[in-house]
Amino acid sequence: MAGLDSVLACLDLNLDRAVGRLSDLLRIPSISTDPAYAEDCRRAAEYLAGDLSAIGFDAAVRDTPGHPMVVAHHEGPAPKDGVKAPHVLFYGHYDVQPVDPVSEWHTGPFEPVVQEMPDGTKRIVARGSADDKGQLMTFIEACRAFKAETGGLPCRVTIFLEGEEESGSPSLNPFLDANREELSADVALVCDTNMWNRDTPAISTGLRGMVGEEVVIKAASRDLHSGYYGGAAQNPIHVLANILADMHDADGRVTIPGFYDGVEELPDVVRKSWDSLDFSEADFLGEVGLSVPSGEKGRSVLEQTWSRPTAEVNGIAGGYNGKGFKTVIAAEASAKVSFRLVFSQDPAKIRAAFHAFVEARLPADCTAEFHAHGGSPAIQLPFDSPLLEKARGALSDEWPKPAVMIGMGGSIPVVGEFKSRLGMESLLIGFGLGDDAIHSPNEKYEMSSFHKGQRSWARVLAALGEG
Amino acid sequence: MAGLDSVLACLDLNLDRAVGRLSDLLRIPSISTDPAYAEDCRRAAEYLAGDLSAIGFDAAVRDTPGHPMVVAHHEGPAPKDGVKAPHVLFYGHYDVQPVDPVSEWHTGPFEPVVQEMPDGTKRIVARGSADDKGQLMTFIEACRAFKAETGGLPCRVTIFLEGEEESGSPSLNPFLDANREELSADVALVCDTNMWNRDTPAISTGLRGMVGEEVVIKAASRDLHSGYYGGAAQNPIHVLANILADMHDADGRVTIPGFYDGVEELPDVVRKSWDSLDFSEADFLGEVGLSVPSGEKGRSVLEQTWSRPTAEVNGIAGGYNGKGFKTVIAAEASAKVSFRLVFSQDPAKIRAAFHAFVEARLPADCTAEFHAHGGSPAIQLPFDSPLLEKARGALSDEWPKPAVMIGMGGSIPVVGEFKSRLGMESLLIGFGLGDDAIHSPNEKYEMSSFHKGQRSWARVLAALGEG
Repeated sequence: MAGLDSVLACLDLNLDRAVGRLSDLLRIPSISTDPAYAEDCRRAAEYLAGDLSAIGFDAAVRDTPGHPMVVAHHEGPAPKDGVKAPHVLFYGHYDVQPVDPVSEWHTGPFEPVVQEMPDGTKRIVARGSADDKGQLMTFIEACRAFKAETGGLPCRVTIFLEGEEESGSPSLNPFLDANREELSADVALVCDTNMWNRDTPAISTGLRGMVGEEVVIKAASRDLHSGYYGGAAQNPIHVLANILADMHDADGRVTIPGFYDGVEELPDVVRKSWDSLDFSEADFLGEVGLSVPSGEKGRSVLEQTWSRPTAEVNGIAGGYNGKGFKTVIAAEASAKVSFRLVFSQDPAKIRAAFHAFVEARLPADCTAEFHAHGGSPAIQLPFDSPLLEKARGALSDEWPKPAVMIGMGGSIPVVGEFKSRLGMESLLIGFGLGDDAIHSPNEKYEMSSFHKGQRSWARVLAALGEG
Repeated sequence: MAGLDSVLACLDLNLDRAVGRLSDLLRIPSISTDPAYAEDCRRAAEYLAGDLSAIGFDAAVRDTPGHPMVVAHHEGPAPKDGVKAPHVLFYGHYDVQPVDPVSEWHTGPFEPVVQEMPDGTKRIVARGSADDKGQLMTFIEACRAFKAETGGLPCRVTIFLEGEEESGSPSLNPFLDANREELSADVALVCDTNMWNRDTPAISTGLRGMVGEEVVIKAASRDLHSGYYGGAAQNPIHVLANILADMHDADGRVTIPGFYDGVEELPDVVRKSWDSLDFSEADFLGEVGLSVPSGEKGRSVLEQTWSRPTAEVNGIAGGYNGKGFKTVIAAEASAKVSFRLVFSQDPAKIRAAFHAFVEARLPADCTAEFHAHGGSPAIQLPFDSPLLEKARGALSDEWPKPAVMIGMGGSIPVVGEFKSRLGMESLLIGFGLGDDAIHSPNEKYEMSSFHKGQRSWARVLAALGEG
C-alpha cells in the first residue's frame, strides 16, 4: 500500500508524543470495581472520546447504568472497483484493576515512568500500562498516523471501549443488545491478549467455551451416624465419587455419551504449526510443580488445552470437613463440574448429556439436583479465513518471527458475546508479554510492544483494507 | 438359688424407696461438660459413694484431674467346693448431658417426677433418668436387696462410676492404667445400652471397632485456572474420586487387599437368632428416607451393620465450594474415611493397607498425605461364653420374651479400653428404650425398666455366682 511506509515513519517519529498521550491516560486512576473512582472512570472515557474526536472520529461517551462506554466511528475509503473495504470494530477497555498491595509498587501506580533495563529495553510502568490502556492506544495511534499521513483510514473503523471489564462487565450485554446495528461489523479486533513471545506475534483463533454445572446427590433424609447405619445406608459421597470417576476412561477421554459431537481434529497444517511452536511442556507444567500431562493420551499439551474439550471437577464437598473427625454419613454431597468446549460442541446438549449421565448412575434411594452455572460455545475462527490470513501476513512483516495462530484454553467473555449477540467473529491480537504483571504490582508494558504494536495495527489495517 | 426369691420380693416391696433414692440423685445437676457444675458432679459422686458405703461397700470418691471417679468394692461369697464366684466390675456414669433447650422441658430437668401414661405405664422424667443414673441405680438396688436379704453378694463386685462420660472421658484411660490391678475383674457389666424392645432384653455381644483416616491428595504447587491448564494438569479431585470409587466393588465389598483378614462368618445359630428378631429393614431404612440396603450384597441389614466391616467416606472437600462458580483446578483434595471393624480385624493393618491402596493408585505428580484419627479393634464376645449364657438365661427368666444377643454398629469407648487396658471382656446389658430421649428434653426412664432392671440384675448376679 502506497501510504503505509509514511504511516510507519510517522509512528516512529512520534513515539515520544504517543508515550506522552498514553501517560496522560495512565494518570487517570480508572479503577472500575471501586465506586470511589467512578468519576475517574468517566474522566478516562472523556479523555479517549476527546482524543478520538480530535483524530476525526465521530466519538461519544455513552452512559450506562455503570461506567460509560466510548463509541467512535470513522468511515472507510470509497469502494475500489465496487468493492467496499471491510468494517472493523476495535474493542478495548479503559478501566484498570485495583493497585493493592500498593506498598509493593516501586513507583506510583498512577505515575507512569519509562524505565530502561540493563539489556537496553525500555518499559512503561503503571497500572493499566499493559491491561489495557497501552494496548488500546496502539490501535488509536495507528489510526492517528493514518489520518495524519493519508487523510483517511483504510477500513471503516468503529472503536468500542468498555469501562467495566475488570468488574464483570455488567453493562456490556444490554449495551450490545441495544446497539446491535451500530456495533455490528465484519470482524472484531480484540486487543487484550499476549504475543507468543517477545519476537513472535500471535493471533488467537480459538477460545474454548464452557458449561458450568453443579450436581447435588441426595440420599437419606438427614445425616446418619456411620456406626448405626454404616454398611446399610447409601452414602452420597460414594455415589458422587463413582459418577465422577466414571466420567473419564483410562485414556483420559470423557465418557459422557455424545460428548465429542462437534469436536473436530485439527487440520494437519495447524497441528504442525503448533508442534513447531517454541513451547516446552516441561516448563509449562514444571512451573506449577507438575511433570506429566495428565489429560487425553496421545495429545500434546497445546492440543489438550487449546483444541480438546475437558470435564473438570472444580469443587467437591460433602460430610464433615472440619478439624478432627465425625463419623457421619452425609445426607448429600455436591460437586461443581465445568466442561471446556471446542469447535461446535453445543453447551445445551453437553449439559443435557451430563444430566443423563448422572441420572443413569443413580442407585436406588438417590436423587440428583442440578444447578446451571453459565454456558457458552467455543469460538473457532475458520483456519482458512481470508481476514485471518491478511492479519497474519501483516504481523509477520513487522516482527522478527512470523505470526503464529494459537488457541486459548480459557474464554474471553466479550468474544462470545460478539459472536452470539452480533454474529461477529473476532481476531484476537495483542502485544502483551507473559511477564507484564497485569493485575499485580509494577505492571509494565514493553516499549517494543507499544511501538511495534502501533506499527502492527497500521499494517493490519492496511492489509484488511486492500480488499 | 435359695435367696433369690426373697431378694426379688424385697425389690418389689421397696420400689417406692428406690424411686426416692434415684430422685435424690437426679436432683443433683451433674453436668460434666460445664465447669459451672463441677461441684454438683462431686456431690453426685459423694452421694453414690455414701450410698454404697451404707450398703456395705468399701467405697471412695477418687480424685482425677477432672471429675472424680467412684470406686466401691464388695467381697464375694466363700468358695464353694473350692470354686470361687466370679469377680464382676459394674460400670456406669453419674454425669449427665446439658439440658438445653430448657424451654422444651415440660417439667424441671432436675425436678424428677413420676408420670402415669394413658396406657397405665409409669415413667420417671428427669435429665439422667435413663442416661445413666436410672440404669446404674438398678444395679445398686439389686446389691442393696441382696445384702438386706442374704447378708452378702453372690459375686465379688467392684462398682466403677465415671463422671466424664458425657464430656469425652479425659480422665478414664489414665485412671484405668493407674489402677489396673484394682479394676481388673473376670468380666465387666456395662449398663449404658437399650433393650431390643419393651418386652425383650438384649445383650450386646459385639461392637464394631473403628479406624479413622484423613487422606490429602496433592498435585500442582498451587491452584490452577482450569481454562489455562484444564486438560493437561492433574486434578486431585479426580484422583481422589477414582481412589474412593475403587474402594468398593460392584457387590459392595471393600477391595482393599487384606481388608477381610480376621473377619469371621456368623455361627449359624447367631445368624438364625438375628433373622428371627422382630426387625423390619423397611422400617429401619424408611425412618431416614431410604428403602434399599446399599451395602454388601447378600447380607441382611443387621449383618451389614453389626457383623460386617465397612469403609465409609465421612467427608470430602476440594476446590471451590462457595456460591457461584470458580473455574479452578485445586492443588489438593481431601477425604475423611472411617473403617468399621469386626471380629479380629487389626486396626494397624487396616490403616497400613489403606495407605498402600491409596499409594498404589497415585498417578504421576501426585502425593498423598495421611492423618490418623483414632483406631480401636472390634469387641466380640465369644458366642459360647458361659458367662454370656448365664446372663442370657437370667434375663430371659425376668422378661416376657427371651433375651436376644445383638450386635452394635458403633463403638462404646470404655468397652474397648476395658479390653485393651485391663484385658477384660464386657457384657453390655441395659434397660433403656429407643424413645427414652436421652440427650434431649424430657428424658425419661420407664418404671418397668427401673423395676425389672433391678430384678434382672439380681437374677444375673445370682446366676453368675452359681459358678
